[in-house]
Amino acid sequence: MEVARYRTTERTRARRLPERVAYDRATVHAILDEGFICHVGFQVDGQPYVVPTGYARVGETIYLHGSTGSRIGLWPGMDVCVTVTLLDGLVLARSAFHHSMNYRSVMALGRTRSVGDPDEKEAALRAVVEHIVPGRSAEVRGGDRRELAATAVLALPLTEVSAKVRTGPPKDDEPDYVLPIWAGVLPLALSPGSPEPDPLLDSSVPLPPHVASWSRQAPRPRGRGRSAR
Amino acid sequence: MEVARYRTTERTRARRLPERVAYDRATVHAILDEGFICHVGFQVDGQPYVVPTGYARVGETIYLHGSTGSRIGLWPGMDVCVTVTLLDGLVLARSAFHHSMNYRSVMALGRTRSVGDPDEKEAALRAVVEHIVPGRSAEVRGGDRRELAATAVLALPLTEVSAKVRTGPPKDDEPDYVLPIWAGVLPLALSPGSPEPDPLLDSSVPLPPHVASWSRQAPRPRGRGRSAR
Repeated sequence: MEVARYRTTERTRARRLPERVAYDRATVHAILDEGFICHVGFQVDGQPYVVPTGYARVGETIYLHGSTGSRIGLWPGMDVCVTVTLLDGLVLARSAFHHSMNYRSVMALGRTRSVGDPDEKEAALRAVVEHIVPGRSAEVRGGDRRELAATAVLALPLTEVSAKVRTGPPKDDEPDYVLPIWAGVLPLALSPGSPEPDPLLDSSVPLPPHVASWSRQAPRPRGRGRSAR
Repeated sequence: MEVARYRTTERTRARRLPERVAYDRATVHAILDEGFICHVGFQVDGQPYVVPTGYARVGETIYLHGSTGSRIGLWPGMDVCVTVTLLDGLVLARSAFHHSMNYRSVMALGRTRSVGDPDEKEAALRAVVEHIVPGRSAEVRGGDRRELAATAVLALPLTEVSAKVRTGPPKDDEPDYVLPIWAGVLPLALSPGSPEPDPLLDSSVPLPPHVASWSRQAPRPRGRGRSAR
């Protein structure tokens, strides 16, 4: 039976505010599945680098891709931290000190595996397109051998993982509640604008539903009840 | 006279697609000023960590803050990479391989300095609030001595910095342009929802303009003309 929680390690243990940290798979998966940009951290000669890139989760694996010429594509296995952050709102308190943000984030630690098997590679790349724009992978031209060879795909197993979540209104110091200062949450969401057809697109090609109805905002309760800060 | 460009180093040199990389201060500053969440990368015992946090740019310094109990607050100086990513759109090509994203990102490398001087610390924290919600810092209760002591502020000088920018429509392989597949850009932007007053807010306190009119979308041309991919 699959374990419902990732084991806590010294590296993923909460340093502070443990009430904001979660290790259950359901929370971690939901965040990874709503996001589609991650920030990959790695180090070279002691210098950390943080690079944004697309990804997909397939079961208990995160797939990342990059060019074989990029730094991320050069190593067969490297110690990384993959962080996904969803920003849900600005938390505006009565004091400067208690300003905060509502967010959900996942941090996954581990060593990448370079995906060499062509079938796994193709499936991973299809998963990345499908993860970012559900419904699209079946409608586009798939990768050929040359394109697969030019793409580096890395797999990171989800083993050492934690999530952090902050929700709810600001939490001010008790004496500050009488101050005549507006306090609350300004919700934020990543919203699509009007699709912009490629200037070279034949105008007879219709806008497909997977573009017209693209949305990343999972319905969720907002700003209801007080949460621990 | 201030130099208009950051010097390129072996660590910030473009590995590929050099036409997407910029080192001029104007581009770097504009990205840092529009964003307000960065991902800070650091390493402990060879393991990279990537943590999202708020920041502000003041001249040629990025200020970060965290609790003195958090990992980021524990070290007086550490080698970091601070990356800010603004996502502008999904680039939907006719082939899976040429799918991409329009984005603007900045990567700043260097060693942090722990800010101990109370005046610089207070100014930095005010800058962070003001950067995220312009107009707010003057209206809230400022930090007191206890709060300043509980907050770690780190300064990173902008010396080793690069920006990456992708704009414009997809670039497909020539034979793919005849395929009857919709291609173009789906613009994305971080949009505010309706402000949610703190349930404990006195209803006589009005919503201030700095919340009602908060916006992070600098007006900019979108999807006009072809850019190098």
